[in-house]
Amino acid sequence: MTKEIYENPDLKKERQNCPFNKEEITNFLDGGKEKTTERRQLETYILSDEQLKDAVPMEYLSHADKYAEELRKSCLLMHKLADSPAGQVQTLRALMGAGLGSAILKEGNPIALHYVMFIPALMGQGTVEQQAKWLEKAYNLNIIGTYAQTELGHGTFLRGLETKATYDPVTKEFVLESPSLTAYKWWPGSLGKTANYAVVMAQLYTKGKCEGIHPFMVQLRDEETHEPLPGILVGEIGPKLGMNTNDNGYLGFDKVRIPREQLLMKHSQVLEDGTYVKPTNSKLSYGTMVFVRVVVCQDVTVNLRKAVTIATRYSCVRRQSELKPGDREPQVMDYQAQQHKLLPPLAATFGFQLAADHLWNLYNTANNSMEQGDMELLPDLHGLSCALKALCSSEAANFVETCRQSCGGHGYMSCSNFPRIYGQVTAAITYEGENTVLWLQVARYLVKTRKEKSGGLSVKYLIDEEKGPRTVDTTPEGIVKLYRRVAVGLVDIAIAELENNSRKGYAPHDAWNHAAVHLIKAAQAHARLFVVESFVDSLKGSRLSAPVRAILSQLCELFIIYWILDRSGDFFLCANLKKEDLLQLNSKYVQLLAAIRPQAVNIVDSFDLRDEILGSPLGCWDGNVYQRLFDEAAKSPLNQKNVHESFHKYLKPLLKSNL
Amino acid sequence: MTKEIYENPDLKKERQNCPFNKEEITNFLDGGKEKTTERRQLETYILSDEQLKDAVPMEYLSHADKYAEELRKSCLLMHKLADSPAGQVQTLRALMGAGLGSAILKEGNPIALHYVMFIPALMGQGTVEQQAKWLEKAYNLNIIGTYAQTELGHGTFLRGLETKATYDPVTKEFVLESPSLTAYKWWPGSLGKTANYAVVMAQLYTKGKCEGIHPFMVQLRDEETHEPLPGILVGEIGPKLGMNTNDNGYLGFDKVRIPREQLLMKHSQVLEDGTYVKPTNSKLSYGTMVFVRVVVCQDVTVNLRKAVTIATRYSCVRRQSELKPGDREPQVMDYQAQQHKLLPPLAATFGFQLAADHLWNLYNTANNSMEQGDMELLPDLHGLSCALKALCSSEAANFVETCRQSCGGHGYMSCSNFPRIYGQVTAAITYEGENTVLWLQVARYLVKTRKEKSGGLSVKYLIDEEKGPRTVDTTPEGIVKLYRRVAVGLVDIAIAELENNSRKGYAPHDAWNHAAVHLIKAAQAHARLFVVESFVDSLKGSRLSAPVRAILSQLCELFIIYWILDRSGDFFLCANLKKEDLLQLNSKYVQLLAAIRPQAVNIVDSFDLRDEILGSPLGCWDGNVYQRLFDEAAKSPLNQKNVHESFHKYLKPLLKSNL
Repeated sequence: MTKEIYENPDLKKERQNCPFNKEEITNFLDGGKEKTTERRQLETYILSDEQLKDAVPMEYLSHADKYAEELRKSCLLMHKLADSPAGQVQTLRALMGAGLGSAILKEGNPIALHYVMFIPALMGQGTVEQQAKWLEKAYNLNIIGTYAQTELGHGTFLRGLETKATYDPVTKEFVLESPSLTAYKWWPGSLGKTANYAVVMAQLYTKGKCEGIHPFMVQLRDEETHEPLPGILVGEIGPKLGMNTNDNGYLGFDKVRIPREQLLMKHSQVLEDGTYVKPTNSKLSYGTMVFVRVVVCQDVTVNLRKAVTIATRYSCVRRQSELKPGDREPQVMDYQAQQHKLLPPLAATFGFQLAADHLWNLYNTANNSMEQGDMELLPDLHGLSCALKALCSSEAANFVETCRQSCGGHGYMSCSNFPRIYGQVTAAITYEGENTVLWLQVARYLVKTRKEKSGGLSVKYLIDEEKGPRTVDTTPEGIVKLYRRVAVGLVDIAIAELENNSRKGYAPHDAWNHAAVHLIKAAQAHARLFVVESFVDSLKGSRLSAPVRAILSQLCELFIIYWILDRSGDFFLCANLKKEDLLQLNSKYVQLLAAIRPQAVNIVDSFDLRDEILGSPLGCWDGNVYQRLFDEAAKSPLNQKNVHESFHKYLKPLLKSNL
Repeated sequence: MTKEIYENPDLKKERQNCPFNKEEITNFLDGGKEKTTERRQLETYILSDEQLKDAVPMEYLSHADKYAEELRKSCLLMHKLADSPAGQVQTLRALMGAGLGSAILKEGNPIALHYVMFIPALMGQGTVEQQAKWLEKAYNLNIIGTYAQTELGHGTFLRGLETKATYDPVTKEFVLESPSLTAYKWWPGSLGKTANYAVVMAQLYTKGKCEGIHPFMVQLRDEETHEPLPGILVGEIGPKLGMNTNDNGYLGFDKVRIPREQLLMKHSQVLEDGTYVKPTNSKLSYGTMVFVRVVVCQDVTVNLRKAVTIATRYSCVRRQSELKPGDREPQVMDYQAQQHKLLPPLAATFGFQLAADHLWNLYNTANNSMEQGDMELLPDLHGLSCALKALCSSEAANFVETCRQSCGGHGYMSCSNFPRIYGQVTAAITYEGENTVLWLQVARYLVKTRKEKSGGLSVKYLIDEEKGPRTVDTTPEGIVKLYRRVAVGLVDIAIAELENNSRKGYAPHDAWNHAAVHLIKAAQAHARLFVVESFVDSLKGSRLSAPVRAILSQLCELFIIYWILDRSGDFFLCANLKKEDLLQLNSKYVQLLAAIRPQAVNIVDSFDLRDEILGSPLGCWDGNVYQRLFDEAAKSPLNQKNVHESFHKYLKPLLKSNL
């Protein structure tokens, strides 16, 4: 006799008569049937390990205990990966991509930076000899490293970094120094208590001259005792909104001497006598940045998918208020207001992923010509990656919060997993290029292209402006044209503002700064155009069955209309939108909400996110929401006894004191 | 010799030559000179007590230890208030209003609901005899109560609540029962471990008939041992996004018998034989709801003020990137992009407070006629309070996040206090009426008014629509007219949608549901109109010196233009806005950013928020940001030793294992 598996009757009903093959969407998102199989195997391998589960939910632990517990699981995971069939690094990459990592290391992996930044920095910046010296130790986890760039007083602006590495030709050493409090490294993950090595970015001084920021390999802690080496001032920076066991740290140098050979010299060198040898090609690091930003987009999209899955399933289980007087309370998902909250983010998860895939394909295609030394495509790809990272992170963060709020009070509970998902997604607004800084970089590229009539593929529309009648056409292709007109129009408004500021007598940098509000809007419109265009084109180009194509096309249309309605002013201003057009789009929008509503659960099911990865009683596949919420509460240490000791200490004396 | 007080030189410069009297703004916000004096005395009385300070910051503690520590301080605070010159309840109200409470009880006051809900419920719902029995004990804190309404499966919709109280005429008792898991009370603050009494809302059954939701006084725990009484199933619900020591709990009843006299019978009664006596006036509870929602608006505004103060001061201390090539890194506040982030929320703090004050004044004026039995004004005030609560909470939450993100990585740290402020503000989106539910209630009132040409003072504009030329006038008064046109226009669009749905053959409730997106937009426009109008009118009507009036008028203008730019589509659609108008408003907006920028620090100084209340190294008056961040990190238990014990347990074996 097999045990019957519970399934909430409302969810069961939602799943009946699904008109499309969910597995086809799963494969589409995974990038193919085999990828789905591999992912599932890996998930089973990792998630079936009892040792990797939390005895008590993280949020009940003290800060220090959280760190210790995540370090335990992280070390165990490393052992497990070494033994895994697929091999360590590849498995680790897969782990990140699938959101599986955060299912195990919920509060952040204290060893993550070792793989994400330390090893890549060594590979990208170290000579062959340097790699030979450290890379194997790093792969074997005999040393654990991090990457230390940001300082207490300095973030995005590299030239502002204060940490100094001064070459001493007498001893053939660099002397590392933090000349002030603001020069302390601050924020690097893994740095606080975990790493014993770091690639440190510092201003290189030799022969009395500053040659700018360079990477240095620095040992931080004794390999045996883990005690900080002399002159190394290291510690953790304290709790954060999220990712509390990433072990972010600070690091100061009090005249720490390292051998000359610890400058990572793949690109520039300092010779024994102190002569500085310049790098031959400064554009090389762009490639890594494009890669990292694509990963950020994928990461926030996976997180958004989790949030949407949780909120959608919960909204079909939860019944609330009344629609028809006297009827049973309806599923919350049946309210148009709820569909308006959840279906746009649901659609966005496809739009963001397809845009990130598109960028990644462009990058890989370009890589071929780059390997032959042709770097011309890079600035365009770089601009696109900045735009997409800024857009996906900020929109995903807002959408995650909308999903949380759509679950009412229960979304506010830690166990819903929304607070943690938000903590991770919103961090992406700041890291790997703060969004406002990125927007302004993108804007600079757009303005330059528009004025000089020359630029890369992604900004071609600013040069070859479309001619023809400027009527409004509400087919998807017609809507893409509207976005294009808005993107052009907002660049032109920004340029007009720049010229206006110049006429007022502002110096160029002041004219630029005083046009920032307009420049940012223009950059955002450019990014939106890329997402909308990628979404529409990807569906056209893909081999999908008719039923899957039908639902994805509806989601696409919903999404691209949603963004117009959300910022219709731009379309009035730049795309000749008329009141009648807007009202027509409005009614198309609400029709699409109603059309997609019945498939909402089936679509999120097709994300194939295991309960352990969702990590939320609200979002589990079986919809057994209330029992699971209760079971979660039962884990509270405060519920282990009826009366907490603090009653006797504090409350009883108060009750008896007759105030 | 007096010790010299450090002041960051950039902040010092910001404070030079302030053109207005900061104290005048402080008094204006406090509601008069004496109020400022009282507030400062209370702050000194409370904040100077060493016992009320945290030994270790809350965020390092485990969940249970946080609760115990906040309970300790809460009990101490109660003793202190009893001894305070101003007297307990009044002092407590003042404490809440000033944000002082959350400076002491950062994670939430486990005794708060006793004052905020339990005592008011007793006063509002209990007969004179019932008050005599319990009120003194409650005031003296011999008992600690809470208010239990929400259930695990039921929130906003009162009729959906499941908890049953069935009258047994034989024993003259009510029998309380939770007929299912979803019937468990879930969420009430103070309920988990602290309260020993509760006002419980339950469906009253007598003579076989359900008479709807009624309040019952229920003892939960033994007054001596604090053990739950027989049949009472009580515990805490677990950690949340914020307010983790509010002690939110669950509560189930397994046939708990209470005497008939524990039905709170001020409004309706059950006689000994089980006869139910209806309440005479069902509108009475509206008044409390108006009051509570005004308090919510004030609370989120105070929190927003904290966030803006922290971000503004930090942005004037922080130097980043470059504007003019070769120059020193500029203050972040000098970037237009940063001004665009911070000055609208700065202005909003005034707009929200003035609107809440305005509503409060309307309510108090109306109270006179209500005391004479005239309840006609209540529905209008109720609608306005719903609208204002929904608007202030959602906008303030977004603004707080903008402030946090404007501080880059450092805003992500717990010690910045942004995460906690956000946790409190965003909760207000859900409690005291979930915002979407409130918007739809407001919309119902607007649609009714517009269609029936009859309604209260706040919706008069929907009846007596303004005539005259529909040109765009960008004076503040002209802008208010634009908001009015948008409010009218969006109601009309919603009504058209309703009628369209009816024509399609939808039943009324379906027609309503399928117009929800439009209805919500209309309600939001109504709320915005009220804030904008209150802001403009309050400044006109107030006795302010010319310099203070000048800066507040600039803030007002900035704010009302900001909202137009943010949702210009509505103004194109409904207010006849032309492209030229928008471009003109755009340039006025950026001029105002530049004009207000030099006074930003002086304005936040005038909020007069003590460092202890801000609770953030980023926002302290002296601007000693980096030293304070360092000092905060030094408090981390992980920094008390160079090597954490987890190294030996987990990391060292990994390093030595040669994976």
